[in-house]
Amino acid sequence: MSTSIPKIVVLGAGYAGLTTAKRLTKQLTAEQAEIVLVNKHNYHYETTWLHEVAAGTINPNQARVMISDVVSPNRVRLVYDSVVKINKDEKRVVLENSEIEYDYLVVALGFESNDFGIKGMAEHAFAIEDIDSSRLISEHIEYQFAKYNNEENVSEESLNILVGGAGFTGIEFVGELAQKVPELCKKYDIDRSKVRIINVEAAPSILPMFDKELVDYAKKSLEDRGVELKIGAAISEATSEGFIVGDDKELIKAGTIVWTGGVKASSVLGESGFELVKGKVNVNSDLRPEGVEDMFVIGDCSWVWNKEADRPYPSTAQLAMQEADVVAANLKALITNQPVEEFVFSDKGTVASLGHSDGIGNVMSGYKLSGKSAAAMKKVVDNRSLFLLGGAKLVLKKGKFRPF
Amino acid sequence: MSTSIPKIVVLGAGYAGLTTAKRLTKQLTAEQAEIVLVNKHNYHYETTWLHEVAAGTINPNQARVMISDVVSPNRVRLVYDSVVKINKDEKRVVLENSEIEYDYLVVALGFESNDFGIKGMAEHAFAIEDIDSSRLISEHIEYQFAKYNNEENVSEESLNILVGGAGFTGIEFVGELAQKVPELCKKYDIDRSKVRIINVEAAPSILPMFDKELVDYAKKSLEDRGVELKIGAAISEATSEGFIVGDDKELIKAGTIVWTGGVKASSVLGESGFELVKGKVNVNSDLRPEGVEDMFVIGDCSWVWNKEADRPYPSTAQLAMQEADVVAANLKALITNQPVEEFVFSDKGTVASLGHSDGIGNVMSGYKLSGKSAAAMKKVVDNRSLFLLGGAKLVLKKGKFRPF
Repeated sequence: MSTSIPKIVVLGAGYAGLTTAKRLTKQLTAEQAEIVLVNKHNYHYETTWLHEVAAGTINPNQARVMISDVVSPNRVRLVYDSVVKINKDEKRVVLENSEIEYDYLVVALGFESNDFGIKGMAEHAFAIEDIDSSRLISEHIEYQFAKYNNEENVSEESLNILVGGAGFTGIEFVGELAQKVPELCKKYDIDRSKVRIINVEAAPSILPMFDKELVDYAKKSLEDRGVELKIGAAISEATSEGFIVGDDKELIKAGTIVWTGGVKASSVLGESGFELVKGKVNVNSDLRPEGVEDMFVIGDCSWVWNKEADRPYPSTAQLAMQEADVVAANLKALITNQPVEEFVFSDKGTVASLGHSDGIGNVMSGYKLSGKSAAAMKKVVDNRSLFLLGGAKLVLKKGKFRPF
Repeated sequence: MSTSIPKIVVLGAGYAGLTTAKRLTKQLTAEQAEIVLVNKHNYHYETTWLHEVAAGTINPNQARVMISDVVSPNRVRLVYDSVVKINKDEKRVVLENSEIEYDYLVVALGFESNDFGIKGMAEHAFAIEDIDSSRLISEHIEYQFAKYNNEENVSEESLNILVGGAGFTGIEFVGELAQKVPELCKKYDIDRSKVRIINVEAAPSILPMFDKELVDYAKKSLEDRGVELKIGAAISEATSEGFIVGDDKELIKAGTIVWTGGVKASSVLGESGFELVKGKVNVNSDLRPEGVEDMFVIGDCSWVWNKEADRPYPSTAQLAMQEADVVAANLKALITNQPVEEFVFSDKGTVASLGHSDGIGNVMSGYKLSGKSAAAMKKVVDNRSLFLLGGAKLVLKKGKFRPF
């Protein structure tokens, strides 16, 4: 009997995968489908909080949640292992320590840093990719401060923090650094003027998803707190000393170098023979790749076309969680022989933090926020993703209730 | 008029120097003597707590006190500068940024790590010398943990912590590590079995100041918590990889190497032409070097002979603070033309911590303590040194009130 129950395998417990698994437990009974969730770690982490982990402004443990606290291991089989390859033809997933077959697959393996082939970037720059890589950055930064007063011939640039990319992650990260660096200076008896926080961006503006008024607000907020913004300056190479920047090939030196300039889908997709467009898989409006019946690709692994704007939706946690709702509904539809539905994105707005007490945002169709109210809204947004995953209990446990 | 007031210059604001300055303000009026206290930093730190800073089990700021909170800047002129040289003949002290003349000098410049010329030790091993060097160790250890899950070919030994010397500092340090390492393993998702804490000692026993019963207790306590004790094993060389140990020249590898095996007086003394015996200055029972009238050398800079035992008193905070009492009294005697008094050490006992909830100690003429009561007593001892320096206010501010 049990062999006739369809098996849904969800790869990845990020916003997209974990929400899918959670929604599936509501949509389908144990008699209707077996659900398997595969994830490298036994925890989910808040990707949108990693810039805070990387800056050291929150405890890494606040940014992660045990998966078994979100979905019941009685209903969802939890497999903690790394995905090596997806074998579409055999409907099988190869894991590091085992293999798993599926009837339906949800690929939600998230992103990897994309250095667009910039020379030396992979070797010399840190990336904000997961909990491990993010707290390595904050530990690396703190180690530079700890060394500073202990060494005879310490380079003056060792305290500098150089961040490539002025998108969401890069700007939110330097916003946190503007808050963290004075704390580190105080802790390690170092003059604030010894530390440069430098953001380098090839594009003509920071935060391209916001309009000029909000961008100007953000720039002023960051520059007033000592962040140097080098806009319209391409990085031609990363070295052990820093970035080589701009037409005049200036070497900007720093003891900590971080690249936030781009993401691409998990390398498992390319290695499994998926066709990639700008690093991700194009999916139809039902969130399946063209011509594929039994597989959904969501979150940072895929591009979903925004027909109105004639470009893909930007990858966000909000998008991933809304996709998960539709995937769960569509899996139910497939299993119960109903028609699948189309994904339509409902934009709840976008808020970027600039440290813990400042920010900018667009919310409620065009209403703009900046300053403390945006910072407050950012915490509401962060808590909302917790609420969507784990209800009020999880918000109380991991939510952000800092005074502002 | 003011030129006729004798000028007392105290070098160093450790236990010895800061207590001397504090006592002088009680013993002598502003009309009787000018008091100058010279120290590198604007803070005093609890040297006996540095093993906790180095292990990362206390906040470095708990282990330091602003000097101006202990002695009034209205009564004591505070000079924050490094001592370069003492010119005895000209009664002058050369500082990095100025010079200062004295009528009476108290040399309390503390200790430096003494590697007894072991090859490579100065280059490759950390030392627990001051706040800066101690928190560098805890940051270095944490950085090894942060890197572990992020690197492809990370060496298995990178998490190991290798400590040379099983005296007070070395053993108290590994005791703290036995407590800290499981916390770090939990934080960084690393199996405890991946981390070795290894203490290497050339002498036939750890903690030579305690008797066999207490030493056996300490060894069992540490070994039960996973500390490896390699006793009777001399270190012939320190390399970037670890220590070369014992007759068979075994290389023990570790990502963190700390040397706690010996101390000597501040190098300023040797560079100023003081005669050194085993790294320190011998002083008479009035705490002045033989034949010197205007200078006292105390704390970790000097040896005071214990006539009963026919060997010098071991250097401890307790000894330093008792010396300071006598120096202050003798300075008053010199200024008021009274005879100086002899220093007699009154042993209040010795307590060593083995982490925050275990320890061993001798207190009240031969009464032995071990376990939680020794750990509790250790906190009493730590708080007592705060009390002697800054009264109840300082105990409340910086005291140790951990539950145990």
